[in-house]
Amino acid sequence: MIRFESDYSEGCIPEILEALNRTNNEQTPGYGMDKHCAKARKFIQKACKSDKVDVHFLVGGTQANATVIAAGLRPYQGVICADSGHINVHETGAVEATGHKCLPIPSKDGKISAKEVEEVIKAQKYDASKEHIVQPGMIYISFPTETGTLYSKKELKDLYQVAKRYQVPLFVDGARMGYGLMAKENDCTLNDFVKYSDVFYIGGTKVGALFGEAVVIVNPQLKKDFRYNIKQRGGMLAKGRLLGIQFETLFEQDRYFEISKKAMRQAERLTAAFKKKGYDFYYKPQSNQLFPILSNKKAEALRKNFTFLDFGVIDKNHKVARFVISFMTSDENVDALIKAL
Amino acid sequence: MIRFESDYSEGCIPEILEALNRTNNEQTPGYGMDKHCAKARKFIQKACKSDKVDVHFLVGGTQANATVIAAGLRPYQGVICADSGHINVHETGAVEATGHKCLPIPSKDGKISAKEVEEVIKAQKYDASKEHIVQPGMIYISFPTETGTLYSKKELKDLYQVAKRYQVPLFVDGARMGYGLMAKENDCTLNDFVKYSDVFYIGGTKVGALFGEAVVIVNPQLKKDFRYNIKQRGGMLAKGRLLGIQFETLFEQDRYFEISKKAMRQAERLTAAFKKKGYDFYYKPQSNQLFPILSNKKAEALRKNFTFLDFGVIDKNHKVARFVISFMTSDENVDALIKAL
Amino acid sequence: MIRFESDYSEGCIPEILEALNRTNNEQTPGYGMDKHCAKARKFIQKACKSDKVDVHFLVGGTQANATVIAAGLRPYQGVICADSGHINVHETGAVEATGHKCLPIPSKDGKISAKEVEEVIKAQKYDASKEHIVQPGMIYISFPTETGTLYSKKELKDLYQVAKRYQVPLFVDGARMGYGLMAKENDCTLNDFVKYSDVFYIGGTKVGALFGEAVVIVNPQLKKDFRYNIKQRGGMLAKGRLLGIQFETLFEQDRYFEISKKAMRQAERLTAAFKKKGYDFYYKPQSNQLFPILSNKKAEALRKNFTFLDFGVIDKNHKVARFVISFMTSDENVDALIKAL
Amino acid sequence: MIRFESDYSEGCIPEILEALNRTNNEQTPGYGMDKHCAKARKFIQKACKSDKVDVHFLVGGTQANATVIAAGLRPYQGVICADSGHINVHETGAVEATGHKCLPIPSKDGKISAKEVEEVIKAQKYDASKEHIVQPGMIYISFPTETGTLYSKKELKDLYQVAKRYQVPLFVDGARMGYGLMAKENDCTLNDFVKYSDVFYIGGTKVGALFGEAVVIVNPQLKKDFRYNIKQRGGMLAKGRLLGIQFETLFEQDRYFEISKKAMRQAERLTAAFKKKGYDFYYKPQSNQLFPILSNKKAEALRKNFTFLDFGVIDKNHKVARFVISFMTSDENVDALIKAL
Repeated sequence: MIRFESDYSEGCIPEILEALNRTNNEQTPGYGMDKHCAKARKFIQKACKSDKVDVHFLVGGTQANATVIAAGLRPYQGVICADSGHINVHETGAVEATGHKCLPIPSKDGKISAKEVEEVIKAQKYDASKEHIVQPGMIYISFPTETGTLYSKKELKDLYQVAKRYQVPLFVDGARMGYGLMAKENDCTLNDFVKYSDVFYIGGTKVGALFGEAVVIVNPQLKKDFRYNIKQRGGMLAKGRLLGIQFETLFEQDRYFEISKKAMRQAERLTAAFKKKGYDFYYKPQSNQLFPILSNKKAEALRKNFTFLDFGVIDKNHKVARFVISFMTSDENVDALIKAL
Repeated sequence: MIRFESDYSEGCIPEILEALNRTNNEQTPGYGMDKHCAKARKFIQKACKSDKVDVHFLVGGTQANATVIAAGLRPYQGVICADSGHINVHETGAVEATGHKCLPIPSKDGKISAKEVEEVIKAQKYDASKEHIVQPGMIYISFPTETGTLYSKKELKDLYQVAKRYQVPLFVDGARMGYGLMAKENDCTLNDFVKYSDVFYIGGTKVGALFGEAVVIVNPQLKKDFRYNIKQRGGMLAKGRLLGIQFETLFEQDRYFEISKKAMRQAERLTAAFKKKGYDFYYKPQSNQLFPILSNKKAEALRKNFTFLDFGVIDKNHKVARFVISFMTSDENVDALIKAL
Repeated sequence: MIRFESDYSEGCIPEILEALNRTNNEQTPGYGMDKHCAKARKFIQKACKSDKVDVHFLVGGTQANATVIAAGLRPYQGVICADSGHINVHETGAVEATGHKCLPIPSKDGKISAKEVEEVIKAQKYDASKEHIVQPGMIYISFPTETGTLYSKKELKDLYQVAKRYQVPLFVDGARMGYGLMAKENDCTLNDFVKYSDVFYIGGTKVGALFGEAVVIVNPQLKKDFRYNIKQRGGMLAKGRLLGIQFETLFEQDRYFEISKKAMRQAERLTAAFKKKGYDFYYKPQSNQLFPILSNKKAEALRKNFTFLDFGVIDKNHKVARFVISFMTSDENVDALIKAL
Repeated sequence: MIRFESDYSEGCIPEILEALNRTNNEQTPGYGMDKHCAKARKFIQKACKSDKVDVHFLVGGTQANATVIAAGLRPYQGVICADSGHINVHETGAVEATGHKCLPIPSKDGKISAKEVEEVIKAQKYDASKEHIVQPGMIYISFPTETGTLYSKKELKDLYQVAKRYQVPLFVDGARMGYGLMAKENDCTLNDFVKYSDVFYIGGTKVGALFGEAVVIVNPQLKKDFRYNIKQRGGMLAKGRLLGIQFETLFEQDRYFEISKKAMRQAERLTAAFKKKGYDFYYKPQSNQLFPILSNKKAEALRKNFTFLDFGVIDKNHKVARFVISFMTSDENVDALIKAL
């Protein structure tokens, strides 16, 4: 059985295990104040081409989302997101558990536009009874989105202009950031997220690490006392160096980008194969998650040798499948799937 | 410099790194539903001598505490604890952030007694305006306590009787459980915590693992839907197997107990040395944290070669220091410290 | 200027002011434990034809909604509602501030059906990653809805069957309950809400009182410790008797129903007039809120003598207006508006 | 039976009922945007000798406390208070329900000093692991305190200096403000609270009104969007004018002060009588709550004709009683009690 069901099925790149072995007996201060975290911060600042940003390491994505959002909002504020946004559908109400409403915008492709966001902000701002309506206090997008699509640099800039105009910070969930950055169609860099967002995170869990997300805070107003928020939300690892060591390994050289690039070339090869065989895609295939439309018969046949997710139903005879490529996917496995198509 | 400042200064026991290496390419389902977690659960049930308990793996202590407490309380309930309890002083209000009040009992040694707890429960229960007072809904103790002391089996049973009588569940924070169990003066077993508490956790972070705490739920009422709570509080690791692999390694054989035992013998050797040299202890030395009273001069002298925590001030010339032994402490380092005394 | 903009523009029925005057010097215990509250509870139980229900008096609607919902849910649960539901759009996230997500169902007329609710419950219940999705823990409907429509007894029963089947309690927001009950098209009684819901409230603020909502709890599981929740959410009036006196006055005889009936006959007269003049309604006119479609020109003309709400835009030349009849609306004012049509 | 058990046993001053009668048919906008609220705001600003302060009307004290505190704190901050502070003991954890910890200082007389507060702030600020400790974000005091004592102007100024030095706003719960201001020993004015606090409220419920508290915000940083907080916490009365009318009546002339003054003269007369008869007081008798120490026998004798609260036990033969004078207390009743002593 060959698995294409998620990008967190395996462990991590071997270099990380080597680093954990090498450093195991070192004695360091706890809670992210060690030299590995310090180095990893520097490397990430360099990758972001900015020494002004703050970098914090958190264990997982739901934790990172809830912590950043709760830290940035006043009690009566909510967070604008796509209705398919991870925070809105797959985090068991973690944002609401901190007291804040998700303000979902219906989305066909997992993205929301500057225009749509502005309309939501204005609708509340200029409503006669605005104090009865949750005030938009943050904008949440995912790059890539949960449905594998990408924002262009133009779209990102437009969103950020709205964010600045109304002083509603833009937060980018980058759980799969590496794949997005290395996608063929992408025109955004890490530095663009420094320029065009207020806070974002660079996902490790799904891109090379055992676990861990690096939160990068650009907007000075969001920097203050952020470590208190991490601790309060249960995200401050006692042996914080584990996160430092992992991101040090990923960013000291360009490992993060290399492994993402390799995965994206595989994903694009697979996309081309699907297209060649005449399959349509339910969402535009732009990153490491592909959503081809399969006949039920074909899906059944593939299931014998491959695992993938049933994502939705098109009609009596067709469904949407989800195939995920990761940094651990081997060329052989991609070849085998292409052959089976 | 030899470090005695905490029990989370280093990595983990080598076997865990070996297991992570060995399993790195395995493909498993996420979120704790893999075979390693399943095995680890079985091993822990066996160590607890009960196949009825539920076992869940969380990343860290603050997270485990907030998740268990929030899961067990109604909105208007609070949690009784020692005023020195970790949840009351060192978790940045994580419990309050879930909406619940800590109900601290003044404590000299980090422990609270059945009698004291009963008084707090009765004071609220029989107050004429009880609806204006937070209702005690859980009892939180630490084993060992934050000040290194231990509950005897008798004390634990007495607490549990109060817990049962008033239907206020007893929760035991076992961040350093291993050291407590293996202490010379201890008469409690894991099975005693199954018999005399409603929920407890077995700490991994400070006892052999890179990170991780195994929450053991005894009381059936606390079992329902617990995984939802883990996810909502940001504690559900995507690669949940990392926790499974670690606890599998610690509990397949008796590694958890062996490493704890070794550390406790060192701690007891150090305690004997302090006593022999005429030092008093601020808190009774019972587990892996020792709080000797040093003259400022002696403390200064020791600082040249050893790190330890300044815990408090006794008078102009004396202070309380905290020395911590861990599963990574070497006999040589203990010898060196004893010599320096 | 004659006002039709809301049903809370004036004070209360004169009998309530008389009762407040008459009782002003009485000395009573606080917090709802006085004899007026006791009597009012009895009268409401009688009106509900049930001596089993618990009755609590709260100050306002947002408070009543947030208190009932937070009291009834586990932390990881949310509340199903129409997307136009008051809790979802006009309470500044009061429900989310207690930690819970609203789970909105798109609705054209302010109502949600048993079938739609069941689909939402089943979608979560049978999802493979259900623990990542907020669990539906309560169903919220309004009677009448925020858009003036009514549930039939059949619709209510169907909803309650789903509620019982899945053990997801049904909560009815009755801020305008009186108008709904006395509507010509209505076939529900207070006793039907006892039979076919788990908890509901009878609105006073918009139906005769200065302020106050009577929460009626049917489901025994929701009764426990409810007063703690009221106090914690800031809803326990020190001089609780003020609420008792008002509901005593409204329910000792049939005043609540009489004043609602009078208002509904006016609303129906106004509806007939709109229809006769050829106006369409945006929402079916069933209770005391009417949403006729006006040409902009006509709206402008009416504005000279009448206040009403601009509710929405139909096209360049037409809009939806909202006219509200209340227990204080005079026949003369209704006549004047009819004449102006 | 003559009642001295609380200051919320009766209704309100007759002028308020007259005003409610007189204005009952007026049509006004809702939610505090009416002309009565506007006038009342002006009158209160005048009484405060400041046209810069914002004035908001809330229904009750617990609501006012939770709303002000939650509005002023960041998620990881808590509120310093006396351990006997109302928020810490008698509000069912309403502050914690908004996510914030109370940081109680042990107090013998219900007061906390500038020095004690500064120590708490500094202890956290300069702790090596400060991010693990709740950050003090507000200081809460009551004037008068829950035990009837008063802060002198000097004490208030000292507290405010600490508040300013550390940028930790000072909030004064003035549920019984009128009695405090009119106490013989008092040297504070409303204007002093403008000068020496960041936000305070003027209690109506216990001082002349049916219900209602006027929150006065001095610090500009606390003013922003405060109405959103009121709405979210369930404190925005639909018929907000009810609050406006009451405070208009209390502050248009000096009624608020006159009724408080009359009550305080009665309280002082009663205090003198107690002292003359040789009774000691458990707390210094400074405002409208008196805590004499009675023999059990005397207490029993008084109970035949008077109600009062058993506040605590001194020894086998003596107890602390609480007698409360209010704006409704008649001279005859005070005379009767004095005679009975």
